[in-house]
Amino acid sequence: MNAARLHAYHEPLKLDKVDEPTPDGPLDVIVRIGAAGLCRTDLHIQEGQWASRSGVTLPYTLGHENAGWVHEVGPAVTTVEPGDTVIMHPFITCGLCRACRAGNDMMCFNGSFPGIDRDGGFADFLKTGARSVVKLDPSLRPEDIAALADAGLTAIHAVKKAIPLLGPGTRAVVIGSGGLGHIGIQCLKAMTPCEIIVVDPLEPALALARELGADHTVRVDGTHVDKVKELTDGDGAEAIIDFVGEKGAVEDGVAMLRDGGFFYVIGYGQPVHVDTIEIISREISFIGNLVGTWIDLDDLMTLTAQGKVTLHTSTYPLDAVNDAMADLDQGRLQGRGILVPEGAAA
Amino acid sequence: MNAARLHAYHEPLKLDKVDEPTPDGPLDVIVRIGAAGLCRTDLHIQEGQWASRSGVTLPYTLGHENAGWVHEVGPAVTTVEPGDTVIMHPFITCGLCRACRAGNDMMCFNGSFPGIDRDGGFADFLKTGARSVVKLDPSLRPEDIAALADAGLTAIHAVKKAIPLLGPGTRAVVIGSGGLGHIGIQCLKAMTPCEIIVVDPLEPALALARELGADHTVRVDGTHVDKVKELTDGDGAEAIIDFVGEKGAVEDGVAMLRDGGFFYVIGYGQPVHVDTIEIISREISFIGNLVGTWIDLDDLMTLTAQGKVTLHTSTYPLDAVNDAMADLDQGRLQGRGILVPEGAAA
Amino acid sequence: MNAARLHAYHEPLKLDKVDEPTPDGPLDVIVRIGAAGLCRTDLHIQEGQWASRSGVTLPYTLGHENAGWVHEVGPAVTTVEPGDTVIMHPFITCGLCRACRAGNDMMCFNGSFPGIDRDGGFADFLKTGARSVVKLDPSLRPEDIAALADAGLTAIHAVKKAIPLLGPGTRAVVIGSGGLGHIGIQCLKAMTPCEIIVVDPLEPALALARELGADHTVRVDGTHVDKVKELTDGDGAEAIIDFVGEKGAVEDGVAMLRDGGFFYVIGYGQPVHVDTIEIISREISFIGNLVGTWIDLDDLMTLTAQGKVTLHTSTYPLDAVNDAMADLDQGRLQGRGILVPEGAAA
Amino acid sequence: MNAARLHAYHEPLKLDKVDEPTPDGPLDVIVRIGAAGLCRTDLHIQEGQWASRSGVTLPYTLGHENAGWVHEVGPAVTTVEPGDTVIMHPFITCGLCRACRAGNDMMCFNGSFPGIDRDGGFADFLKTGARSVVKLDPSLRPEDIAALADAGLTAIHAVKKAIPLLGPGTRAVVIGSGGLGHIGIQCLKAMTPCEIIVVDPLEPALALARELGADHTVRVDGTHVDKVKELTDGDGAEAIIDFVGEKGAVEDGVAMLRDGGFFYVIGYGQPVHVDTIEIISREISFIGNLVGTWIDLDDLMTLTAQGKVTLHTSTYPLDAVNDAMADLDQGRLQGRGILVPEGAAA
Repeated sequence: MNAARLHAYHEPLKLDKVDEPTPDGPLDVIVRIGAAGLCRTDLHIQEGQWASRSGVTLPYTLGHENAGWVHEVGPAVTTVEPGDTVIMHPFITCGLCRACRAGNDMMCFNGSFPGIDRDGGFADFLKTGARSVVKLDPSLRPEDIAALADAGLTAIHAVKKAIPLLGPGTRAVVIGSGGLGHIGIQCLKAMTPCEIIVVDPLEPALALARELGADHTVRVDGTHVDKVKELTDGDGAEAIIDFVGEKGAVEDGVAMLRDGGFFYVIGYGQPVHVDTIEIISREISFIGNLVGTWIDLDDLMTLTAQGKVTLHTSTYPLDAVNDAMADLDQGRLQGRGILVPEGAAA
Repeated sequence: MNAARLHAYHEPLKLDKVDEPTPDGPLDVIVRIGAAGLCRTDLHIQEGQWASRSGVTLPYTLGHENAGWVHEVGPAVTTVEPGDTVIMHPFITCGLCRACRAGNDMMCFNGSFPGIDRDGGFADFLKTGARSVVKLDPSLRPEDIAALADAGLTAIHAVKKAIPLLGPGTRAVVIGSGGLGHIGIQCLKAMTPCEIIVVDPLEPALALARELGADHTVRVDGTHVDKVKELTDGDGAEAIIDFVGEKGAVEDGVAMLRDGGFFYVIGYGQPVHVDTIEIISREISFIGNLVGTWIDLDDLMTLTAQGKVTLHTSTYPLDAVNDAMADLDQGRLQGRGILVPEGAAA
Repeated sequence: MNAARLHAYHEPLKLDKVDEPTPDGPLDVIVRIGAAGLCRTDLHIQEGQWASRSGVTLPYTLGHENAGWVHEVGPAVTTVEPGDTVIMHPFITCGLCRACRAGNDMMCFNGSFPGIDRDGGFADFLKTGARSVVKLDPSLRPEDIAALADAGLTAIHAVKKAIPLLGPGTRAVVIGSGGLGHIGIQCLKAMTPCEIIVVDPLEPALALARELGADHTVRVDGTHVDKVKELTDGDGAEAIIDFVGEKGAVEDGVAMLRDGGFFYVIGYGQPVHVDTIEIISREISFIGNLVGTWIDLDDLMTLTAQGKVTLHTSTYPLDAVNDAMADLDQGRLQGRGILVPEGAAA
Repeated sequence: MNAARLHAYHEPLKLDKVDEPTPDGPLDVIVRIGAAGLCRTDLHIQEGQWASRSGVTLPYTLGHENAGWVHEVGPAVTTVEPGDTVIMHPFITCGLCRACRAGNDMMCFNGSFPGIDRDGGFADFLKTGARSVVKLDPSLRPEDIAALADAGLTAIHAVKKAIPLLGPGTRAVVIGSGGLGHIGIQCLKAMTPCEIIVVDPLEPALALARELGADHTVRVDGTHVDKVKELTDGDGAEAIIDFVGEKGAVEDGVAMLRDGGFFYVIGYGQPVHVDTIEIISREISFIGNLVGTWIDLDDLMTLTAQGKVTLHTSTYPLDAVNDAMADLDQGRLQGRGILVPEGAAA
């Protein structure tokens, strides 16, 4: 089959012919990929940021945001069968460790992560586990919903953590109205009564934010921090939800945060560097966020089915993966980029 | 009256003769100081770390951890009268703003902070507000309980935030078993079933920690991070409660933190500097802590009355304030340092 | 001044001439009533249900949902002055007890409740305390917002408790779309993504519910429990929010509740009578609700200012109070009934 | 094999010879019973209280609190093997439904409950599922820890819900110091700083309570409600944890509950019957509790391993099951009753 694989850090992916995966374990599920989302994390993997963390051996196939159709299942799988339309929770989890039992499956002690530390979905087929496939209505097209599996999941996960803070009269600043941010805005809108302020350097991204329900949009132009302070009576916002994490976003976010407030770290690239005296004298907090749980994905699919979350995507054929990555890197990609293998596009 | 005042940053305090404060407002309370705790923050004020944050004009009187006896009250004060033994909540709050109404009085929109941004308790008398004095049993001696007002309050405030994390089988690492830390250990013991690991460079501090109920103590000697990892099955602890915040404590704490865990920032000095990829890939969080609420102080006084928290202090006469500050700075002061004005010592 | 007073249980109120209240305490506030809401509790007081609980001595003036203009203030009041338009938090609280300090002022140890245990607002003037008056934009008319002070406050208080339960895909059943219920529906809509099912015997009340955003409405006609079960896949709803509490509402509510769910008791009249084996085998819970806190009122005023909550009222002159009470009792009053003193109507 | 089965409601159990269970499903586990706890629920089943709820067909084997050794496993079981010492979580759960995924496995949509709705552990062998067996240290004896599986699990589950209420200075009233209650007292002691007041009609049960750390014990003698009121400054306790649920316990509990407090329903028999006006005017709540989750069991095993929870039991041979049930019914059984099959006792 075809697979877009990373052979060397800082190099483009290569379209390789590789063997199709097979269901070796009793709970394995082989999925024919219908669509795989492209994520800034794919750029960061290419840059080598994950090399020491994932411990993966090159070459391997990227793609951690996948949807498609079940192709083959192991003998103990009872919940799906070949032909079913499915979306994948991105993590393969055991269901038996304390983290899984507690509903915190992203912290599974035995988990693995296709596209991060093993072969992912930039390919014709993907091997995953029975716990990670979620059966969908057969009328749904993978390319229309694949972006829920990671971009959406990450966004709702962070927003759900912020709900207790975001009562009437509070403000949330969303930094970045791209692949994740545009979903985050809708989650905030659906689940909280807070006022939503969106900050982004690009006017089309801000236009999308307004269309999706942002109360205020502020262009990154050097005066944006002051503008957000004005919009928050000089105090800053109760929550900063940072989908960018680089290019000054962290410093800006800390400056736009209200004393006693919470900064949600989602995007990454730049360090958090804050004096402890600032952290304690302002009693501010920084909350890390890693993708999301199965429950988060289920919640997000509900909001999508109810029309409260809609996805904005740009589709590319799988063999244009390097073009798509360049578009993402250079800010030309609006919404989420989706890769579609040749066979699935028919 | 006598007052130990800071005239210039990086200089010792001076013992000055100044006017006694008077109750100008209807809710003012003048307290004759019985004891005032000495805090690492007093060193940090002297170093100028707070200059831009507090906006205070020099000279002024330090001392933000105070207990004594009511001397004089404004006409609208009904809850205490001259002669009452009192401890002071360190912040003077309005009781009418949304933060006070929500029980979060440390975020009072109209508050002021004796010893930080106005004259404090290193003096014979202190002016505070009716909401900040808590009447005590007349048999209590101010020098025995003054350390509850800030060291204790700060410790319980942070520990209470960590309670939901610290169920059976979890571990908390307490960094620093000094003025705050020795109270934090007892609060953890009283309010959670977690295992307590205490890290400190000084053997007497570790001995005190063991006496107060620490399950494990680890001396800071270059191998301490590895030792804590071993004590936590290689995973690190669910919570790091850092009462130090300088001299490598933050880096050590991040290294001893379990994935998914929370780092409580209390001590300060050194920046938090962590790559966002580390924050998100490990899903770790950093929680700022600023002193504590009136309710926290009430809770702490209950634990103390029940014998679940005991204070370890070293007493100095007020005019030895600079000696006490030197002892604190150089690690010669065990437990909390307490300054007692001449008149109160009789 | 005029005051509508209860002289004997089970008797109509009488319009009496009584002395105007005066600010005897330093923090007293005398308010000229602009509008006073009529509540089912006023009927229950008349029926004697509160006699033993409130301990009030007859005759006294009813009316616990009040708005108007400041008339006179005690010497220590600094936050309002004569002429200010104000709404009253219904409880007079001390601000100094542990409950007030914790943000739970409805449990104030020293509180009193105009219209319940002392003279209320069915009169030209009302005496309250400085902590209980909230200054409003002078352009607001008391009759347009008085219903926030109790009907709205009670509704938002209960809904806020239910928020953590009411994530995507969950259902809340609102029993009763009257004075409180119609606000409860809007609070649910503004603050949660849950599906809202409204149950009421009256078609106009259901029409109002639909207009305000109910997802489903079910008329009480003997088949309503089954209909709600159908709307919830046979399982029942995660939350029952019962604004009625009599005429079978409690039994119906328990039958419509999902295993593991929460029943919010707000309306009253009928007992909760449930076998403990049902409570434990279904793991269901019953949550009492008493008006709301100052913070709840502040939140509600925010939602109202944002247009997320609108009030539906029917206005009566104060001297028609007994007509209004009869209309409420007999289901002829839609939305909230508001009494306006002669002078205020000008 | 031997099995103690219920053939008719209100009749004693019969010791029958029945077929041994076999692992028909891939995830089935057959356990040789080492010990099975006896529960008041077994009496209630015998009385027919569960007939309509469980829908079970007679005859069947009781026993829902089990420990022993793995005897045989289905082909997909990887976590235990024959010979392993195990304790059973009492519910057989799917691990795939939303409730299981959320960590709330007691609400599993596809669960079954040995000893309640299918054959339980009053027998030589029990069939359960791979998710329900927890491997233990081989040195542990089933009869020493079986009581954790239901009595202990139910107690910790309820206590964990109450933790957020039970800060310093609060009181919990434990009604009943028997099989569940004596564990509940220890869980409160281990996990909260509250004052513990224990109410029971039997002096030996109160003596046990004191030994386990109760701060106060009060004998049920007609004056007990007043005594508890006195011990709580006339206000009642923040939490009532009722392990009895019959013989007046519910009325007593409501009378001993503080305004704003929570009543935890665990024992059952008598209805909760409370006027809604009492529920709302006192803002009190009633929380149902059903056994506990896998995580609760894990937490309890930790507390037991740490020596913070110890079990008090009385052992009977399995064929004395009817004697044991009579002892339990008539208050002659202290701590938890444990049944041991003949083979296991060797």
